Amino acid sequence: MDDLYFVKLFDIYKGLLTARQREVFSSHYFYDLSLAEIAEPEGTSRQNVYDVIRTVKNKLSEFEANLHVLEMTEKLTVVADGLADRDRETSAIIKDIIGR
Amino acid sequence: MDDLYFVKLFDIYKGLLTARQREVFSSHYFYDLSLAEIAEPEGTSRQNVYDVIRTVKNKLSEFEANLHVLEMTEKLTVVADGLADRDRETSAIIKDIIGR
Repeated sequence: MDDLYFVKLFDIYKGLLTARQREVFSSHYFYDLSLAEIAEPEGTSRQNVYDVIRTVKNKLSEFEANLHVLEMTEKLTVVADGLADRDRETSAIIKDIIGR
Repeated sequence: MDDLYFVKLFDIYKGLLTARQREVFSSHYFYDLSLAEIAEPEGTSRQNVYDVIRTVKNKLSEFEANLHVLEMTEKLTVVADGLADRDRETSAIIKDIIGR
């Protein structure tokens, strides 16, 4: 899976991660820091940071495999977009519910 | 929160629980066994079973507080029901996506 996929999953499931997992993932994917750059100020190893990111990706994949929230919201976005012309109100309500 | 609420949450989030947590919760809420009846064949205490159920309820509440899947699907069910007369196809598609 590509990075964008995990960024989308992170956006949905981040509340189920630990503070450290959120911080490491954000540093790497949102602030574009390298593993070494994240490790250095923490006094930890590049390998340790790598392991945290791998754990986060595994957890995010597990959450989605069980709950399908990303899949569900993406399908509903398609439905809402398809409704936009003929039923703008319902389209907006659906997007509001799914937070898009 | 009442039992039905936790049964609904369990239905959504059970994949994130451990096998034992699922088993104890199901025994109590679906098979209607008392805490003592669950504890006895396992050779554990009523208190231990009570603690597992309390932990499960806390986890389910935490999942919903973070992910709002039940809230989202219930709101979408209302939208789909409201559409049923004037746009049966879209109503059915929404219900299919949210699994209702």
